[in-house]
Amino acid sequence: MRIGKLREVQEREGLGAYILTRTPNVLYYTGSTSGGILISTLGEEPLLLVSRMNLEMARAEAKGCEIATYERKTLLRDIAERVRRADPKIVGFDELRLETFLKLRERLEGFRMEAKPEIIWEMRRIKDEEEVSRIRKACEIADAGMEAVRSSLKIGMREYEVAAELEYAMRRAGAESLAFETIVGSGPRSAYPHAGCRDRRIREGDLIVIDAGATYRGYRSDITRTFIIGRPSEEQRRIYETVLEANERALEGIREGVKGREVDAIAREVITKAGYGEFFTHSLGHGVGLEVHEPPSLSKESEDILKTGNIVTDEPGIYITGKGGVRIEDTVLVRKDGAERLTRFGKSLEDIIL
Amino acid sequence: MRIGKLREVQEREGLGAYILTRTPNVLYYTGSTSGGILISTLGEEPLLLVSRMNLEMARAEAKGCEIATYERKTLLRDIAERVRRADPKIVGFDELRLETFLKLRERLEGFRMEAKPEIIWEMRRIKDEEEVSRIRKACEIADAGMEAVRSSLKIGMREYEVAAELEYAMRRAGAESLAFETIVGSGPRSAYPHAGCRDRRIREGDLIVIDAGATYRGYRSDITRTFIIGRPSEEQRRIYETVLEANERALEGIREGVKGREVDAIAREVITKAGYGEFFTHSLGHGVGLEVHEPPSLSKESEDILKTGNIVTDEPGIYITGKGGVRIEDTVLVRKDGAERLTRFGKSLEDIIL
Repeated sequence: MRIGKLREVQEREGLGAYILTRTPNVLYYTGSTSGGILISTLGEEPLLLVSRMNLEMARAEAKGCEIATYERKTLLRDIAERVRRADPKIVGFDELRLETFLKLRERLEGFRMEAKPEIIWEMRRIKDEEEVSRIRKACEIADAGMEAVRSSLKIGMREYEVAAELEYAMRRAGAESLAFETIVGSGPRSAYPHAGCRDRRIREGDLIVIDAGATYRGYRSDITRTFIIGRPSEEQRRIYETVLEANERALEGIREGVKGREVDAIAREVITKAGYGEFFTHSLGHGVGLEVHEPPSLSKESEDILKTGNIVTDEPGIYITGKGGVRIEDTVLVRKDGAERLTRFGKSLEDIIL
Repeated sequence: MRIGKLREVQEREGLGAYILTRTPNVLYYTGSTSGGILISTLGEEPLLLVSRMNLEMARAEAKGCEIATYERKTLLRDIAERVRRADPKIVGFDELRLETFLKLRERLEGFRMEAKPEIIWEMRRIKDEEEVSRIRKACEIADAGMEAVRSSLKIGMREYEVAAELEYAMRRAGAESLAFETIVGSGPRSAYPHAGCRDRRIREGDLIVIDAGATYRGYRSDITRTFIIGRPSEEQRRIYETVLEANERALEGIREGVKGREVDAIAREVITKAGYGEFFTHSLGHGVGLEVHEPPSLSKESEDILKTGNIVTDEPGIYITGKGGVRIEDTVLVRKDGAERLTRFGKSLEDIIL
């Protein structure tokens, strides 16, 4: 099905051969988590080359393609052979490592090779019903993780102990893996958007930024909530409410036909008007699917036009060195007339003050 | 310190400029988890270019380098400017994406650009005392995870529930993240070396391959144990004992001066003699450090010569489609006269029969 559509696009674009090397792309087109190299030519059945170690997994999972094993030493020769047989005008590929590209280009002398990742993303960024339902479930699992944080977070806990409770709840709720490395940034560390998770102990009055997600049947979710134990200061409250307004206003602005930069601008304007513009140091959001960072992008420069079936994050933040940070993030589904929020965990001040 | 050593190597190799783009390499040379691009030239202080979002983290963590922010649009220009100023004979780099390489080569016309990852690995593969002690701790944490599996594994549990117990214990023991996605492959799925973790329920008599690791202060561990609930069949027992012997014999063969392929051959010979050679479908092991897969390699073709301070895995396996698989893996430290096992969880039949 999907591979058939890829071939239609190949025909349209004159790509007599297309080489897929990225594991999520192989999964998208074949259903197999085996990784490997998928070669789609117009004349023959697609060929999935896998390492011997992953052969049986590919046999059990991959649909719509021939399967063969490769040896590292002869892989490039095998790819070139298959491609040459198709005698393509252009050889497209999703991504090749520099060394692989240079070597393969030698073996494919006379053929034009072009990186064409966008034809894959054109398809992957529009989620079908089954994909939406898996991401919806991944979001429910992430919500369960946040519930566990709310009921266990205490003064004196270490950041990694907070992650323990969150991830345990996500696993028990059915996460087949984490969507990405959980962030627990507390106190001054909450001012680092990519704080990771360390051994710092939570103190009263800390802002605690928690960014996590789950994988369910290959599909991911992404949620951030910022908690605080005890009474927030006036400034903390002002920052929190600003970020929340930015998150909610952006959500209202998400719908089919709007550009990524327009949605980013909505959130950025709220934050700038409140006087915190310089502290919103990243983009508003990104697509989510088989990977946690995908197109389309909601950033200052993004010309991506949102379409029904896109799933994106809405995650404004304010980060002030020495004081701390606040980020509020939801995973949302783009529809014709608006957005549907898939992460449902509460985000009002009452929800996050413990 | 390390950056000083890098410059010595650059001088030796005629690399007037060296560009580091890989996050673990930036961490290794600066101590910063901020990511970014590190440019080491012979004339000036090293320059770390980070995204604005990660600036404060870099400022707090990075040592021995100048720090500046970059904009995506002007990053290549900034890199080229710094490199040109050093007027290098050769511009080395650890890794560049194909597109980045092509664009940068244009901006650096007249300079020779060469991928030189090996000069980094030369250093990174020899762990110093502090690195060994962190990996030792990461291994202790992984052992705690396996203990939790042993005490909680029951018939009827789903694979992801087993992962929940394992990861929860690792987090509580101080894991700052998982070293990689946990594998829980049970029953027929144990025959997939890269099984991932699904919702299958554990049954009596299943082989259950569990492959996991923890990160502690940036450094990783890697352990696999194969459990079975109830009485193993004669064949399961024979397979298990063969893999265990391969693991132990290889361990005895690990010492300074031995080649990767020689250690691989020890394990492979044990398995082949027992009649299972064709079912040992992967390499014996790989280096572990800031990343979970590093040089040196213990594989059929590896000419890597082991040195004191290498940390590698020893992980033979036998995988029989339809029947299941067994893998036993330790993380070990290479010493002058032998190997020290850093993962200590038991691996005799008594340890893994539940």
